[in-house]
Amino acid sequence: MYSFKNDYSEGAHPRILNALIESNLVQTEGYGEDCYTQEAVELLKQKINRKDVDIHLLSGGTQTNLIAISAFLRPHEAAIAANTGHILVHEAGSVEATGHKVLSIAVEDGKITPAQIKSVLDTHTDEHMVKPKLVYISNPTEIGSIYRKGELEQISGFCKENGLILFLDGARLGSALCAAGNDLTLTDLGRLTDAFYIGGTKNGALIGEALVICRESLQEDFRFHMKQKGALLAKGRLLGVQFLELFRDELYFDLAKHANKMADLLREAIRKEGFSFLTQSPSNQIFPILPNRLIEALQEIYAFYIWSKVDEAHSSIRLVTSWATREDAVLAFIADMKKTLESR
Amino acid sequence: MYSFKNDYSEGAHPRILNALIESNLVQTEGYGEDCYTQEAVELLKQKINRKDVDIHLLSGGTQTNLIAISAFLRPHEAAIAANTGHILVHEAGSVEATGHKVLSIAVEDGKITPAQIKSVLDTHTDEHMVKPKLVYISNPTEIGSIYRKGELEQISGFCKENGLILFLDGARLGSALCAAGNDLTLTDLGRLTDAFYIGGTKNGALIGEALVICRESLQEDFRFHMKQKGALLAKGRLLGVQFLELFRDELYFDLAKHANKMADLLREAIRKEGFSFLTQSPSNQIFPILPNRLIEALQEIYAFYIWSKVDEAHSSIRLVTSWATREDAVLAFIADMKKTLESR
Amino acid sequence: MYSFKNDYSEGAHPRILNALIESNLVQTEGYGEDCYTQEAVELLKQKINRKDVDIHLLSGGTQTNLIAISAFLRPHEAAIAANTGHILVHEAGSVEATGHKVLSIAVEDGKITPAQIKSVLDTHTDEHMVKPKLVYISNPTEIGSIYRKGELEQISGFCKENGLILFLDGARLGSALCAAGNDLTLTDLGRLTDAFYIGGTKNGALIGEALVICRESLQEDFRFHMKQKGALLAKGRLLGVQFLELFRDELYFDLAKHANKMADLLREAIRKEGFSFLTQSPSNQIFPILPNRLIEALQEIYAFYIWSKVDEAHSSIRLVTSWATREDAVLAFIADMKKTLESR
Amino acid sequence: MYSFKNDYSEGAHPRILNALIESNLVQTEGYGEDCYTQEAVELLKQKINRKDVDIHLLSGGTQTNLIAISAFLRPHEAAIAANTGHILVHEAGSVEATGHKVLSIAVEDGKITPAQIKSVLDTHTDEHMVKPKLVYISNPTEIGSIYRKGELEQISGFCKENGLILFLDGARLGSALCAAGNDLTLTDLGRLTDAFYIGGTKNGALIGEALVICRESLQEDFRFHMKQKGALLAKGRLLGVQFLELFRDELYFDLAKHANKMADLLREAIRKEGFSFLTQSPSNQIFPILPNRLIEALQEIYAFYIWSKVDEAHSSIRLVTSWATREDAVLAFIADMKKTLESR
Repeated sequence: MYSFKNDYSEGAHPRILNALIESNLVQTEGYGEDCYTQEAVELLKQKINRKDVDIHLLSGGTQTNLIAISAFLRPHEAAIAANTGHILVHEAGSVEATGHKVLSIAVEDGKITPAQIKSVLDTHTDEHMVKPKLVYISNPTEIGSIYRKGELEQISGFCKENGLILFLDGARLGSALCAAGNDLTLTDLGRLTDAFYIGGTKNGALIGEALVICRESLQEDFRFHMKQKGALLAKGRLLGVQFLELFRDELYFDLAKHANKMADLLREAIRKEGFSFLTQSPSNQIFPILPNRLIEALQEIYAFYIWSKVDEAHSSIRLVTSWATREDAVLAFIADMKKTLESR
Repeated sequence: MYSFKNDYSEGAHPRILNALIESNLVQTEGYGEDCYTQEAVELLKQKINRKDVDIHLLSGGTQTNLIAISAFLRPHEAAIAANTGHILVHEAGSVEATGHKVLSIAVEDGKITPAQIKSVLDTHTDEHMVKPKLVYISNPTEIGSIYRKGELEQISGFCKENGLILFLDGARLGSALCAAGNDLTLTDLGRLTDAFYIGGTKNGALIGEALVICRESLQEDFRFHMKQKGALLAKGRLLGVQFLELFRDELYFDLAKHANKMADLLREAIRKEGFSFLTQSPSNQIFPILPNRLIEALQEIYAFYIWSKVDEAHSSIRLVTSWATREDAVLAFIADMKKTLESR
Repeated sequence: MYSFKNDYSEGAHPRILNALIESNLVQTEGYGEDCYTQEAVELLKQKINRKDVDIHLLSGGTQTNLIAISAFLRPHEAAIAANTGHILVHEAGSVEATGHKVLSIAVEDGKITPAQIKSVLDTHTDEHMVKPKLVYISNPTEIGSIYRKGELEQISGFCKENGLILFLDGARLGSALCAAGNDLTLTDLGRLTDAFYIGGTKNGALIGEALVICRESLQEDFRFHMKQKGALLAKGRLLGVQFLELFRDELYFDLAKHANKMADLLREAIRKEGFSFLTQSPSNQIFPILPNRLIEALQEIYAFYIWSKVDEAHSSIRLVTSWATREDAVLAFIADMKKTLESR
Repeated sequence: MYSFKNDYSEGAHPRILNALIESNLVQTEGYGEDCYTQEAVELLKQKINRKDVDIHLLSGGTQTNLIAISAFLRPHEAAIAANTGHILVHEAGSVEATGHKVLSIAVEDGKITPAQIKSVLDTHTDEHMVKPKLVYISNPTEIGSIYRKGELEQISGFCKENGLILFLDGARLGSALCAAGNDLTLTDLGRLTDAFYIGGTKNGALIGEALVICRESLQEDFRFHMKQKGALLAKGRLLGVQFLELFRDELYFDLAKHANKMADLLREAIRKEGFSFLTQSPSNQIFPILPNRLIEALQEIYAFYIWSKVDEAHSSIRLVTSWATREDAVLAFIADMKKTLESR
């Protein structure tokens, strides 16, 4: 049964495996001080177009979020996130486990605005409450929407004016930067955020996220925090080799474009059948609202998650594509959908 | 320059890379619920000869230690470790960062005894002090020594009598279990400890440690702790595939035997030259005490760590071998040592 | 300017000061092992009608909440609270600082129901989310409402069925238990909750809250948690002497009755003028909705907090009475209110 | 049975109780923003001779230590303390519970030197270990010895040169500053430390420690940390009134002088009988080494702690005096000691 459940259902892109094989018996230093990691870091600095950022390679999104946030905040400071934010809901209280509250903003489309951030600041005014200090956003958001450059500039400006740290979760950043309507670049992120990360696991790597710390005052001693939280891998080369391969040329973006293209095919075909979507997602996760009967029929042939009940007869589902999604499988899904609809 | 600095200087054993390639495009569930992880876990249970243990695959030693210890202890409870213990010294306060004190026992040979544990209990008698609750030991120890079955049985018995949790760090467990003088098996560890882990990273894997939780009362909800600390990998298959390959046959032990054999060659050759050792290590880390001049000469051709100053003219060095250590490199090291000694 | 801002604006009831004076030079053990604390604990057990509860005297509400909750929960477990809950909003993230998320339930009247708790459980289903484990309620709530026995029995029953810990914050418990409409007793609380506390600071003591741990499995080693969080006072007698005096006879309830009676006077007088209230509060905090002009006039003569804006011309204010509130001041407030209204 | 067990066996000095009575019905703001606390803080700034220090009143020593240290340090930073240090041994792991390791220095006399601090820095060199950042000292130390100005200047200079924070625990500071041989003043402490506290609980107050934060960069947002750890008392006046009374004139020092004088009487009498002492303590805790038979005889009439076994026939005991110690009781103790010795 072909799966559209996730963008981490397969292993790694063959070029990445090949890079691991080729580098395999070279002896290197441990703990991220190997030549591959160093080279990958330099390459990323070029792509971001800043020499003064700090870059660290970590194993996964939750790990990156919790280490960055706990390293950046003092004990009484809190993060602000959309109520769809991954740190708020799907990371098992990892930020709270480091001692920090995550303040929630109710949003419609996964994105937050300066006005919403301001409303949090306005209600946190003295030492009987936590002090909001870090704004956490995801691009794309957890429901597939993406930030436009103008939106990010407004958030960034508001954060600077109010002494807030802006942190961008880029677990699926490749898909966002390659989505229709995107006008952001890695260079923009390096300029507009205080820190962000470039997700590898969900875009062709076996494992790995590259955290970029842009604000100098947040860079000090970061490797201590990584070690303390169990994130310094003895064979850090595993992360270095992969990011080096992803960014040696355009592989990272090519993989994201493929994922997006597969989502585009699905999106268009579903739209043509007259169905709407729960969220406006130009990225590699789409949330079509379908009749329950159609869903049940499709579930017999394809794996995917049911996202939410919409009304008695309809639900939204989540379809995720990736670098590994086969076009023939997408076309088969579309054909099976049409066949099912016609047979009713 | 050939390196004896570590057992994580290279990538993975070729069979492991091959297993990753072969499984690469199979679609699986995420977060350790894939078929490879499940199969690896079942295989390990067979090797341990217990069906009722819980087994979880994690990324590294520090991560495994901090998650296990913080999951097992209540807030006021403390761990006890030898003063050479990895959690006490070389994990950047990771256990304390989860809120728990680590109490130190001064030891000679890296190993602790029931009498030493008792002396800690005797001085922690009321609520003005922490409550010692978990005994942390490493096998092999951080200085290469290993526990005999009789020693482990005594510690285990003492812990049971005193309501203590016995946790064994097995970052280099393969080397211990294959060392000359060893009489312990995985089955023994399953019987004598409350939890232990089987290190993969330092014995041929790219990454990965298998935590075995033997005591039932410590098993509940463990995946929550993993998630909360950022240790549930989206592509958990990366760990599953590797452990499956390592334990499908005798690969894990074969690799450890090779590492030990390389250490044996070095140890014997050094001993024959009349040098002594800082610690009695039958495992893959040895600590010869050599004249400083010899050390300087060898450093020009080989990479290794200087461990400690012994007297004005002598220091101890650390030589580490692994599954990847080439016999020709070992023989060359020995030859170069002899040549240097003769030329003086 | 007479203040209705709080029930902690004055020192202690004279009988409490007197008890401190009389006991002052008696030599006792430290850290709560003094005779006064022991006697107070025995007395409270009688009032609760259970010998098997554990009782500890602490310094304040935030301290009591954070120690109890962090002692009761394992690292991945979370508390559930109404969105008005003190731990959620006004304790500076103290629970999160111990590592635990507080899950919010949106409520109207400060109280939560089993159905609302169930909705939280229903959306927290696996290890990617925290595990809801403790239900935090306040009686009276932070907006003055009180729980009826039937309501508390339902919550208690639901918690038992679902393995949840029920913890009741009684910072103003005296006022709740003496309010019109109350049908709960200390004995009921001992039977229906897993733990609760009896607030002293806001009912005539200088300082002090009595935490009652009813569920046996939560009692073990509690003094360790108190010490670790800095709550074991060297002169624990300070707390013991006060609680002994408060519960030696009916003083605790007499003081609460006085506070409630003063609130009743204010409430009735305001109601007679035709004003409504933001919340239905029979306890010592009331939230009348008044014209802004009236509020401004009253603010020139009395101190109180403006609670919230209701519409362009009206706001709610908070008036708090206590054991120390003078009846003549209440009557003067009422007279001044009437005079202001007539003069417009 | 008269007790020399502690300096917190009685309540408060009568003048303090009187101040509480006199201020009792004055209405004030809560949470330390009352007029008494403000006035006490101003008074203390005058005594310290610095306007730019921040002063906060807290409830006890463990609370003060844990809040200050956790507020001052980033997650990966550690404290350094003598192995007799209160935070290391007798605070139930309270500092570790906030996430920070406490590194131990083995000392003879309770005091630490720059050379000992340097040895800790020299062995903590990279991110695999914690980063030593704060030096914790006590004056008097936990075994009664005191720091001379020259010693403190050396430590202070070393800390400044090495970017370390110097924190002085003054739980019994009054006794130190009034001891024979002392040449330090409050002004010196304000100049030489980054933070220190002035203990009230053990010098005549019911409860209360005054934390003085001298280094400006450590002052920001400190009340948030107090609130988060449960240390902001609703009736903060309880602390303010007491410190105001203690420092309104020379009361604080007069009480300490009395305690020291009582200790002097005991020390001299014991010395005259030919007994030695475990530690050189000029302050209000002394540790005579006495024959076990004498100890047993005295224990029948007086309460005190046996501190340690010295040899088969001798042990050290701890005698503590305070503002409340009666001279007649001291003289009786001395007489009983002599009588016992003569009767043997």
